[in-house]
Amino acid sequence: MTEPIFQRLTLIGMGLIGSSLSRRAKQSGAIAREVVACDLSADACERVRLLGIAHHVEPDAALAVQGADGVVLCVPVGVLGEVAARIMPHLAPGAILSDVGSTKQSMLREIEPILRRDVALVPGHPLAGTEYSGPDAGFSTLFENRWCLLTPPDGTDRGAVARIGAMWVACGARVREMDAAHHDRVLAIVSHLPHLLAFTICGTADDLADETRGEVLEFAASGFRDFTRIAASDPVMWRDIFLNNREALLEMLARFTEDAQAMARAIRWGDDAFIVDKIERGRAIRRSLIELNQA
Amino acid sequence: MTEPIFQRLTLIGMGLIGSSLSRRAKQSGAIAREVVACDLSADACERVRLLGIAHHVEPDAALAVQGADGVVLCVPVGVLGEVAARIMPHLAPGAILSDVGSTKQSMLREIEPILRRDVALVPGHPLAGTEYSGPDAGFSTLFENRWCLLTPPDGTDRGAVARIGAMWVACGARVREMDAAHHDRVLAIVSHLPHLLAFTICGTADDLADETRGEVLEFAASGFRDFTRIAASDPVMWRDIFLNNREALLEMLARFTEDAQAMARAIRWGDDAFIVDKIERGRAIRRSLIELNQA
Repeated sequence: MTEPIFQRLTLIGMGLIGSSLSRRAKQSGAIAREVVACDLSADACERVRLLGIAHHVEPDAALAVQGADGVVLCVPVGVLGEVAARIMPHLAPGAILSDVGSTKQSMLREIEPILRRDVALVPGHPLAGTEYSGPDAGFSTLFENRWCLLTPPDGTDRGAVARIGAMWVACGARVREMDAAHHDRVLAIVSHLPHLLAFTICGTADDLADETRGEVLEFAASGFRDFTRIAASDPVMWRDIFLNNREALLEMLARFTEDAQAMARAIRWGDDAFIVDKIERGRAIRRSLIELNQA
Repeated sequence: MTEPIFQRLTLIGMGLIGSSLSRRAKQSGAIAREVVACDLSADACERVRLLGIAHHVEPDAALAVQGADGVVLCVPVGVLGEVAARIMPHLAPGAILSDVGSTKQSMLREIEPILRRDVALVPGHPLAGTEYSGPDAGFSTLFENRWCLLTPPDGTDRGAVARIGAMWVACGARVREMDAAHHDRVLAIVSHLPHLLAFTICGTADDLADETRGEVLEFAASGFRDFTRIAASDPVMWRDIFLNNREALLEMLARFTEDAQAMARAIRWGDDAFIVDKIERGRAIRRSLIELNQA
């Protein structure tokens, strides 16, 4: 049998992503000889034990990373720096440190200054998720046919990048490397802005007079229902993403707002051609998505 | 056997809604003795004939309505007035005229001034649809467990309202009466604004530099995919809805934009509590939707 990618892989944070990666790694055998699961919540640790999705469960992150040649931080991006600082002195020499966060420039800003010279940093972001969270929400096929984006800074050890890439390929994902700033712009438009709009429209509806609000719920047509599905996601995770991808997100929101105002103006003045053109572009993007088998 | 609701029901416009209603009426027997389908497109008429979803197919609306005691206009709201003017002289005395449009004040504005005194007007709006269009897209169960909103003006013959309501109940829908202005506000927030946002974000993404645009399609995360599903809907229908519900839609967009700007400010200044509160409200609305079995 081929050697697994890691001897001991420690996953910190047993949410949807961490517990899915743990399940896959424990099932596969090709990823790691041993999987160590860590979560600061005693309840989460207990669930992981009962589910049997890791070889070891260790609530203390400093202990959990000892002897691990691979460590993946699967915590909300707002606590990445804090968790990294806590484990840094305890990492094994030569260990590879990665993460799964949705914002990559903030990750580098927080972790690069405290990074040990004998540890390789390979930031990662699997584009996968559901509106559910916690250790019970995970499943081993979550990453299949999904992208995982890696944003290693210049000069990162290529062997370390290859091993993290191989881990995601073993999870069924496709891997692409890109610059962290570019990653943050792309994600701002494909994911962070849509979520911001979804949360916002729910609030706008909630602020309407009571009578209308009840009817909003009662008569929710397909558009609003789709929006609220997005809006059901985890609040802390999304707060952290918004705050940590501030610049790109605010820029995309500004562009979007200009475009929405242009549409409002066209509606006010009855500019048929403008409106139809915008709608047609939406359909064209939809067709492209279907052609790319992403829909 | 009980008498059907109508002796002769004419449906003008064989899109998703018209062809679904035609299928249901032809199957049920309780709705009408005879179903007459009308569409100004020769192709659509041919498809209806081949599909066998009406008893008669008549491309000329003036001929199609002759002898009908029920007429439902299933055309985009932008041509409602024109079609109503065309058929008005040919309607049978005592006929009931209805529609299925998404904007009700505009419908009343266009049709009430030309309405014959011996014809009853019962505006209707079934809250049902898919992102597909045309006679082939329809299906007889489209309206099951969906709402149909009726907005009859004051003084409308109650017998006529009851018959149109009974038609929708026979389609499996739940019926509610409300004021046209109130209808337009509720629909602006649950349906029209979500569609406007979806069309707009597709355009915003499409305007990004070429390199990023390709990646938007490639990496479209779940948020963006859900938006583009909405954005795949029929352009002419949506243009007409936007233009005909202008006031309510622009008001809801203005409220939404204020809320989005407040969120942007909270992100810029790191106001954690504000952001989490907005996200929690989205989740609460989602939970309410699930409780109402609308999700």
